[in-house]
Amino acid sequence: MAEEERPDQQDQAAESQVADPDEDEFLPRRELLDQIDEAIEAEDRDRLNALLEPMHAADIADIIERLHGADRRNFLQLYSGEIDGEILSEIDEGVREEVLEFLPPEVLAEAVREMDSDDVVDLIEDMDEAERAGILAALDDSDRAAVQQSLAYPEYSAGRLMQSEVVTAPEHWTVGETIDFLRAEEWLPEQFYHIILVDPRRHPIGYVALGRLLSSPRATALREITEDSFRPISAYAEEGDVAYAFNQYHLISAPVVDGDDRLVGVITMDDAMAVMDEEHEEDILRLAGVGEESAITDSVTETLRQRLPWLMVNLLTAVLASLVIAVFEATIQKIVALAVLMPIVASMGGNAGTQTLTVAVRALATKSLTGGNVWRVVRREAIVGVLNGLAFAVVMGIVAYIWFDGVSLAAVIGIAMIVNLAIAALAGILIPLALEKAGADPALASGTFVTTVTDVVGFFAFLGLASAVLL
Amino acid sequence: MAEEERPDQQDQAAESQVADPDEDEFLPRRELLDQIDEAIEAEDRDRLNALLEPMHAADIADIIERLHGADRRNFLQLYSGEIDGEILSEIDEGVREEVLEFLPPEVLAEAVREMDSDDVVDLIEDMDEAERAGILAALDDSDRAAVQQSLAYPEYSAGRLMQSEVVTAPEHWTVGETIDFLRAEEWLPEQFYHIILVDPRRHPIGYVALGRLLSSPRATALREITEDSFRPISAYAEEGDVAYAFNQYHLISAPVVDGDDRLVGVITMDDAMAVMDEEHEEDILRLAGVGEESAITDSVTETLRQRLPWLMVNLLTAVLASLVIAVFEATIQKIVALAVLMPIVASMGGNAGTQTLTVAVRALATKSLTGGNVWRVVRREAIVGVLNGLAFAVVMGIVAYIWFDGVSLAAVIGIAMIVNLAIAALAGILIPLALEKAGADPALASGTFVTTVTDVVGFFAFLGLASAVLL
Repeated sequence: MAEEERPDQQDQAAESQVADPDEDEFLPRRELLDQIDEAIEAEDRDRLNALLEPMHAADIADIIERLHGADRRNFLQLYSGEIDGEILSEIDEGVREEVLEFLPPEVLAEAVREMDSDDVVDLIEDMDEAERAGILAALDDSDRAAVQQSLAYPEYSAGRLMQSEVVTAPEHWTVGETIDFLRAEEWLPEQFYHIILVDPRRHPIGYVALGRLLSSPRATALREITEDSFRPISAYAEEGDVAYAFNQYHLISAPVVDGDDRLVGVITMDDAMAVMDEEHEEDILRLAGVGEESAITDSVTETLRQRLPWLMVNLLTAVLASLVIAVFEATIQKIVALAVLMPIVASMGGNAGTQTLTVAVRALATKSLTGGNVWRVVRREAIVGVLNGLAFAVVMGIVAYIWFDGVSLAAVIGIAMIVNLAIAALAGILIPLALEKAGADPALASGTFVTTVTDVVGFFAFLGLASAVLL
Repeated sequence: MAEEERPDQQDQAAESQVADPDEDEFLPRRELLDQIDEAIEAEDRDRLNALLEPMHAADIADIIERLHGADRRNFLQLYSGEIDGEILSEIDEGVREEVLEFLPPEVLAEAVREMDSDDVVDLIEDMDEAERAGILAALDDSDRAAVQQSLAYPEYSAGRLMQSEVVTAPEHWTVGETIDFLRAEEWLPEQFYHIILVDPRRHPIGYVALGRLLSSPRATALREITEDSFRPISAYAEEGDVAYAFNQYHLISAPVVDGDDRLVGVITMDDAMAVMDEEHEEDILRLAGVGEESAITDSVTETLRQRLPWLMVNLLTAVLASLVIAVFEATIQKIVALAVLMPIVASMGGNAGTQTLTVAVRALATKSLTGGNVWRVVRREAIVGVLNGLAFAVVMGIVAYIWFDGVSLAAVIGIAMIVNLAIAALAGILIPLALEKAGADPALASGTFVTTVTDVVGFFAFLGLASAVLL
């Protein structure tokens, strides 16, 4: 704790020693980061550029995200001229706006021109009209058309995720014709993994992996070497479903088609992986009752904004549970052991409910909880709930008997435990299912609903039974 | 609930109607699944084969995973002759053993021979010596050597994840020479995205994307068109770090090197994506106190085995919190309002602690909480904790004053709230940091530690203050 008082630089030296033994091979070296800090402090632009020059755009973006307040502004003053399309597309949304303010217009225009259409869409989709128009004006006509086409699809759809830069070939071409075309073509995407075969109306009818193309004789028809895994994706598909398909079918890239089954773009696996990562993150943060945009780099204000509303909801449910306790005030006054034991019943219910809930939310997210097995799973959870209840009824019955020397009290807590764990299991599975059915995210707020149920049921069952049996 | 009583088939018809409106385009159609069920029941092998023939191996594996008990056995009786390497490598570990029992030896041998070396490693790494030897015997010499080389690396390392099937070219080759080599080569991996350049001692020195190779003139030297993103991965790197690198640097494939920097294999992005998916899943399940192998398809026994131990731990911590309450029994007997209000203090602390904890665990997993920013984050959490505490001290103070008409009681709950939310924030960040430092998984058991702290501190602060001030 004493360390908190020290000035920043000593802190960092101390931390660097602590971090050294398990230095991570995939993170920039600690010394390099220290040198970068020094260059920022010394306002030494040349040194900063030299240090950052060999780094990957994603790591530079991380450095910008981790800097705070004046440090970040100083950094941007020095470095904004060097920020290119790659770095810009790697920067988190939360930080991006501040970065854009520092970018000279011509640097921004140049950066945007370098970006693939999907990255431009990602950059401008949350901007207001005026800002958007400014960026679109920097693009050449065909790129602008591609970006606007993408923006016409709903948010979080495949259409927003795709890039319009696609390599296609007519279905009747041979390997030789295709290679000649690729060699002659001046413009090609930086990364592509398949050639998509299209008919004259631009319907995709198959794709050829570059490995097959390279290893086949020039005379081979493309049609003969298409992949089995060909799965066009609708531009209206949800991005979460797209990520699922990539993971399920080990896709590297997939063509995207519009409502008339015409090819409009391609989604590559790195974008699908990023979506999967975000969706996981959202699930985990929502389950914990934290705003899904929370990041470790948030400011105090932002952190409060993300967390206070959820704590407020929790306060309301906690007060609700207290109201149940208040009903039995007279009973508690007579048997104060009830006050000692009652949190145990509620806590066990909350934990068991959260267990079921988490498994259910994940199963829904991974599409392994479907119409076909939902009743089997509900039945299983109910059985598990009752069996858990029986097990802990016995354990807590014995504990209560030894502690307070009362057979009736032991019986009351045992029965309350069975009731609450059974209800916890049902709440844990039925609440996310109901939210999913209603079109809401099952991860969002489920936890609060479930623990409200288990608190209320737990206190009511335990104190109610005690009032009936023990008084 | 009434539905639970119905026989299975009616259930499914009812569910299929419910599921229809939002039929998922990436899941096999409901009618197809019903037809498959019918074919299994009728023991109609030809029909079953005809239905499954067009399906992707991953979907067939999912069908096997979702069948239960006798249904699964019947399915395997009918279908085991058709199970190939692709299907086998898609089946979850939990179910795989049962499937292997049904496979005729010659079908298993054939399946294993078709598999890439990384899938064979995944299949046999948890087997005992005798089973392993049986499978290895089915492989030809070079494949067996590759699998054994992989198994020599630690579990969860890049060495276990890599496939040894690599396409390499000497560093001095031209595009034309490489294409001629690929066309002449009889054996090539089914999917490959780069040609890895190696020196005479098999050190990888760069790689060429197939797209660049295809679009360059035959005379171009491979050295001139290598990718910037080249990052060899140590065979000893942890698989979680490998997944991080793929996501961070948008890698499609990456060469793996041994301790002498010699090329030993390649990892492709689909494997990295699968690892990321698993690690997320583990984090989310561990945070909820559910065994990290939990799946929605588990049996009742397996589910109990995954959850009972965690509930037992929770019971112990709940009893610990109760012991704190028991210390203040006399106080509660005099002021029963304390029993009504005390769960609110504990619950708010538990929630606030879990919020901080979840953000911290995710930040550690995504490498955004590092030596460089750890003290800044701890300070921020402490400030947020105190501010949250102040906010809810005011709210609960007012609630308690109105409810129980006592200024002192209002002051006591307010102060207890500040103390508990500040401690909750510190516990939420320091406990996962300590676990990480100690080499443990910060997601594992952190939740229990944190809520134990917040329960104990919450009850102690509130009831202790009440005893001192109100009596």
